[in-house]
Amino acid sequence: MGRPMATRLLNAGYSLICYDPNAESCATMQAAGATIASSAQEAAAAAPVALLSLPTPDVVRAVICGDAGLLGAEGAAIIVDLSTTGPQVAKEIAAVAAEQGRTLVDCPISGGAEGARNGTLALMLAGPEAAVTPLVPALEHLGNVFRVGDSAGQGQTMKVLNNLMSTAALAITSETMVLGAKSGLDPDSMIAVFNAGSGRNTATTDKFPKHVLTRAFDFGMSIALSAKDARLCLEEADRMGVPMPVGTAVRQMLMLTRDHLGPDADMTEILRVVEQWAKVEVHRKPASQEAAQ
Amino acid sequence: MGRPMATRLLNAGYSLICYDPNAESCATMQAAGATIASSAQEAAAAAPVALLSLPTPDVVRAVICGDAGLLGAEGAAIIVDLSTTGPQVAKEIAAVAAEQGRTLVDCPISGGAEGARNGTLALMLAGPEAAVTPLVPALEHLGNVFRVGDSAGQGQTMKVLNNLMSTAALAITSETMVLGAKSGLDPDSMIAVFNAGSGRNTATTDKFPKHVLTRAFDFGMSIALSAKDARLCLEEADRMGVPMPVGTAVRQMLMLTRDHLGPDADMTEILRVVEQWAKVEVHRKPASQEAAQ
Amino acid sequence: MGRPMATRLLNAGYSLICYDPNAESCATMQAAGATIASSAQEAAAAAPVALLSLPTPDVVRAVICGDAGLLGAEGAAIIVDLSTTGPQVAKEIAAVAAEQGRTLVDCPISGGAEGARNGTLALMLAGPEAAVTPLVPALEHLGNVFRVGDSAGQGQTMKVLNNLMSTAALAITSETMVLGAKSGLDPDSMIAVFNAGSGRNTATTDKFPKHVLTRAFDFGMSIALSAKDARLCLEEADRMGVPMPVGTAVRQMLMLTRDHLGPDADMTEILRVVEQWAKVEVHRKPASQEAAQ
Amino acid sequence: MGRPMATRLLNAGYSLICYDPNAESCATMQAAGATIASSAQEAAAAAPVALLSLPTPDVVRAVICGDAGLLGAEGAAIIVDLSTTGPQVAKEIAAVAAEQGRTLVDCPISGGAEGARNGTLALMLAGPEAAVTPLVPALEHLGNVFRVGDSAGQGQTMKVLNNLMSTAALAITSETMVLGAKSGLDPDSMIAVFNAGSGRNTATTDKFPKHVLTRAFDFGMSIALSAKDARLCLEEADRMGVPMPVGTAVRQMLMLTRDHLGPDADMTEILRVVEQWAKVEVHRKPASQEAAQ
Ligand SMILES: NC(=O)C1=CN([C@@H]2O[C@H](COP(=O)(O)OP(=O)(O)OC[C@H]3O[C@@H](n4cnc5c(N)ncnc54)[C@H](OP(=O)(O)O)[C@@H]3O)[C@@H](O)[C@H]2O)C=CC1
Ligand SMILES: NC(=O)C1=CN([C@@H]2O[C@H](COP(=O)(O)OP(=O)(O)OC[C@H]3O[C@@H](n4cnc5c(N)ncnc54)[C@H](OP(=O)(O)O)[C@@H]3O)[C@@H](O)[C@H]2O)C=CC1
Ligand SMILES: NC(=O)C1=CN([C@@H]2O[C@H](COP(=O)(O)OP(=O)(O)OC[C@H]3O[C@@H](n4cnc5c(N)ncnc54)[C@H](OP(=O)(O)O)[C@@H]3O)[C@@H](O)[C@H]2O)C=CC1
Repeated sequence: MGRPMATRLLNAGYSLICYDPNAESCATMQAAGATIASSAQEAAAAAPVALLSLPTPDVVRAVICGDAGLLGAEGAAIIVDLSTTGPQVAKEIAAVAAEQGRTLVDCPISGGAEGARNGTLALMLAGPEAAVTPLVPALEHLGNVFRVGDSAGQGQTMKVLNNLMSTAALAITSETMVLGAKSGLDPDSMIAVFNAGSGRNTATTDKFPKHVLTRAFDFGMSIALSAKDARLCLEEADRMGVPMPVGTAVRQMLMLTRDHLGPDADMTEILRVVEQWAKVEVHRKPASQEAAQ
Repeated sequence: MGRPMATRLLNAGYSLICYDPNAESCATMQAAGATIASSAQEAAAAAPVALLSLPTPDVVRAVICGDAGLLGAEGAAIIVDLSTTGPQVAKEIAAVAAEQGRTLVDCPISGGAEGARNGTLALMLAGPEAAVTPLVPALEHLGNVFRVGDSAGQGQTMKVLNNLMSTAALAITSETMVLGAKSGLDPDSMIAVFNAGSGRNTATTDKFPKHVLTRAFDFGMSIALSAKDARLCLEEADRMGVPMPVGTAVRQMLMLTRDHLGPDADMTEILRVVEQWAKVEVHRKPASQEAAQ
Repeated sequence: MGRPMATRLLNAGYSLICYDPNAESCATMQAAGATIASSAQEAAAAAPVALLSLPTPDVVRAVICGDAGLLGAEGAAIIVDLSTTGPQVAKEIAAVAAEQGRTLVDCPISGGAEGARNGTLALMLAGPEAAVTPLVPALEHLGNVFRVGDSAGQGQTMKVLNNLMSTAALAITSETMVLGAKSGLDPDSMIAVFNAGSGRNTATTDKFPKHVLTRAFDFGMSIALSAKDARLCLEEADRMGVPMPVGTAVRQMLMLTRDHLGPDADMTEILRVVEQWAKVEVHRKPASQEAAQ
Repeated sequence: MGRPMATRLLNAGYSLICYDPNAESCATMQAAGATIASSAQEAAAAAPVALLSLPTPDVVRAVICGDAGLLGAEGAAIIVDLSTTGPQVAKEIAAVAAEQGRTLVDCPISGGAEGARNGTLALMLAGPEAAVTPLVPALEHLGNVFRVGDSAGQGQTMKVLNNLMSTAALAITSETMVLGAKSGLDPDSMIAVFNAGSGRNTATTDKFPKHVLTRAFDFGMSIALSAKDARLCLEEADRMGVPMPVGTAVRQMLMLTRDHLGPDADMTEILRVVEQWAKVEVHRKPASQEAAQ
């Protein structure tokens, strides 16, 4: 995700000092006009703001707080983390940074590689007003910027909440589509009715027509990853003292699907678990298949 | 609902024979151009198709199968029930009608009184092809016609499934909004993020902005009614052998809200139950309130 | 169930007039000392109290309220229904009986055929004090009599509540045994720990050692029947306005097991559903199996 | 818990070297015949086996792995942890100990202060055969020893599973007692029926008669603690890939009670949450209260 975002910033006229352990990535960025540093720390030393997009909480922790981490550099008074790490990790790192007079800004993104390339990401920005306001013009080259709160971790909370909403839609739609199919309803008509009325959600407008009714189950996010995001969200709910009965049921369906079909199953395969229970499959009518072609 | 639908049909050029126990309703329809019968049976006797829009399953049963019911008349070979009665009642009445050589067509509607007036209802039509096809042109004056299946009861199933989807959206959105608010997220920003991404559903696009964040809780459907629709849906799931873990959790939230706040609470008041558990309320920031005015 | 109970009453010195549509049953009862009537109505005509043990609500309704039912006879001022019918049916029949000046007493039983033979049933007796008190000495020949309330239907409620408790124990024990087994714990040790402490229930003391860890799954009650009892209980909870989140989850596990393994599976096979999800089976260690032999 | 257990071992003739940061505790143990060390490390240095009973995972970690921890001493080849820490912490510490050639044996207990004094605890012992077998005679002075598995953490798993069983019983009993009470059933009769039949569990035999129907809610374990144990159990289920639908509902009731009544509420106050939802309280009939006195 980092490369396309950095490219957009360069194209918008910002000057960047980049670092990636992968030499190829560095070469690409250099060709695109970036200065290349020999370490994350070196990059941070020479810039007022550091932007990070890293795979896991452990890597984020290492790159910021580790032995050769950003906090050892003089520059980078503001560190913007674009990775998904969960609210607890963001709060923890923000506290460490604050002890050293630095500000962590929390800005997880959604919208995928395509969104990163096209500048159509959703960015969930959280951090103190003074730190955050000057960042907005740059971040708007990456997508829609939503200022969701004023302390680190709130962007992460927003992100796991959004993902829970998304998987809730997928789970309830799977259940209703299986009951409908077993009752002899036409799947395409069901989707049409939902989309025309109060049943509409992103599973009915998007995932079912494109990735589920086709039986391709190729949305592209793994069930393990969605179960993990749900876990992060429900753990936060536990800590915050917010009961989520429906969210809990959604998380359970995700875990159950992961345990039953394996971690690499597509998240849309929730449908297949309900189908197995109900001993029926949701298939388009031949006519609809033709019409859809 | 019956009056505005009948009016639209008259305006479209159809000739109607109407009956309603309420004399005032009859007078209105007469003024609009309808012939008035002195009973439902008399109305049915003179017409090839009977259209019904009645409050409860018991009334529908009485008007069709009762002592002075439609089945006692010669006409009305096709009976179109536009009421919401649940799949079991529709199947049961269809079977009784079939014994007398009559066809029940099942066509529950959604879209409210406004939809009925404006011809923007969603109509979930189910019944044998031969009976249903000739009805479509007339029904299209009432709204969007979705042919969801070919036997009576399937329209009802479609309707309770759609309503379960709608209340699922409301429940999960209530849970995530409360966790967000307790985490200090700005409610309007949360809704904006959901609507820009995969969290979008009809609670985020419609009910929360208009009826919940305003704290008016005035969507207009009672929690008792939505709990009843969820019950009809989950009972059908039980009969059909389709487990619905998330649907079950949704139904539970509806029942719990009904038991806790009373049957007349607005269905959007689910939020208030989660707020009470979490001891926090979801309030717009003053600035957002101004901006929204 | 009726035959062994009637036999115990005869042996205790009561005189009975019996009827059963099955001639063989009548012959057996005659041999045991009963007078045989040619119909239920005839039997009721000549006795102050009628006792019924019938398979389904519909049969109970027919035998009491039907064309040739007990209410048509002069005798049987008090009707004791020992069948399991659910609280709503009992209340409904009691109301019909009351209109005719008769009292329905509600007395479902538990303890199986063996309990019926040995006089060790549990009898859940509900009805007005005046009607119920004189019955107790006779009923005590059948087992333990518990007076649970003073109006018809309360015995039924007691019975479905007890069964929900029993299946809840079975479901949670299945879940913990599977997690234990997958964690490498010894199943017999687990049961021993539960039984020595606060984890003890009738699944750990009885069903698991005798019917589940043996892999025989031969407790003898079908999953369809236990799912139906849970449905009766949860429907009553819905009507009474009592949320039951854990009871709802138990019912869901029962339905899911029924839908997945078929209605005739033994109720103890809930374990097998959890095993399939978790891809592990709960097996005794060889040594424990020997020790247990 | 440590003091009464150590006292029993001294009384049984074992020689102990004790350490506790609280000087008073040390004095008591000295009076009882123990040698007192000036630190945990010093105590461990002079003994082949170390026994620990400490409040939280963090303290256990510090005392074993910390700067002045047991692993720094020469003795204590075998470390027996009697604390409740959860399976993950036990596995983690066992791994650290193993790197230093030491064996962690996992032996959480249940039965409370009274059990510790009377030697009637349940001890859930897990660890390699060779380390564990020689410990059994000593541990049997403390209560019933159950060898549940052969690697560290399994004792903890056993303990959180047992506690989940216990709270499941409490939750379902709360739900059924409220529905029974709202249906007019006599609470004492209900408990009697449950205890005579398949509904029996440790809430019906113990907690309800002694701590709940008295309205004292004085069982003595906080809802926060039981919610934490349930969390540990469900997190282990998530890691191990074992879906627990009923366990999940139980955990949810515990969290909800904690969030609603506060963390210090007695775990038996789950009943009060269900009562509030249902707007009814479970009270003994006056006669039963007298009879019970
Ligand atoms: N992919 C997606 O669709 C979305 C991703 N996200 C989030 O964005 C973040 C980045 O995702 P994505 O780009 O897919 O992740 P990648 O796995 O591609 O990792 C991003 C970059 O981090 C580099 N990196 C790894 N370890 C270190 C280290 N120790 N020091 C410095 N750099 C390191 C990687 O180098 P190398 O290539 O050498 O490993 C890689 O170039 C994640 O937090 C993800 O959750 C959010 C929304 C959508
Ligand atoms: N209202 C809404 O927003 C929606 C309603 N529906 C469904 O549409 C159906 C009709 O709803 P609605 O119009 O609100 O209901 P109403 O309660 O207004 O009843 C409809 C009409 O039926 C008449 N009626 C009552 N009993 C009898 C009888 N025994 N014989 C003949 N006519 C009788 C009523 O007369 P009288 O006025 O004298 O009682 C009334 O005019 C219901 O099934 C409802 O669930 C579906 C979607 C939305
Ligand atoms: N079996 C068990 O372990 C337990 C059963 N119960 C309850 O006890 C009740 C009786 O159970 P069970 O004895 O197993 O049931 P059965 O199916 O054996 O039925 C009992 C008797 O009723 C007779 N019967 C059926 N229809 C009629 C009718 N229309 N008029 C008169 N008699 C009729 C049957 O005759 P025929 O043989 O000709 O059909 C049979 O002899 C049920 O409600 C059950 O739920 C409760 C606890 C345990």
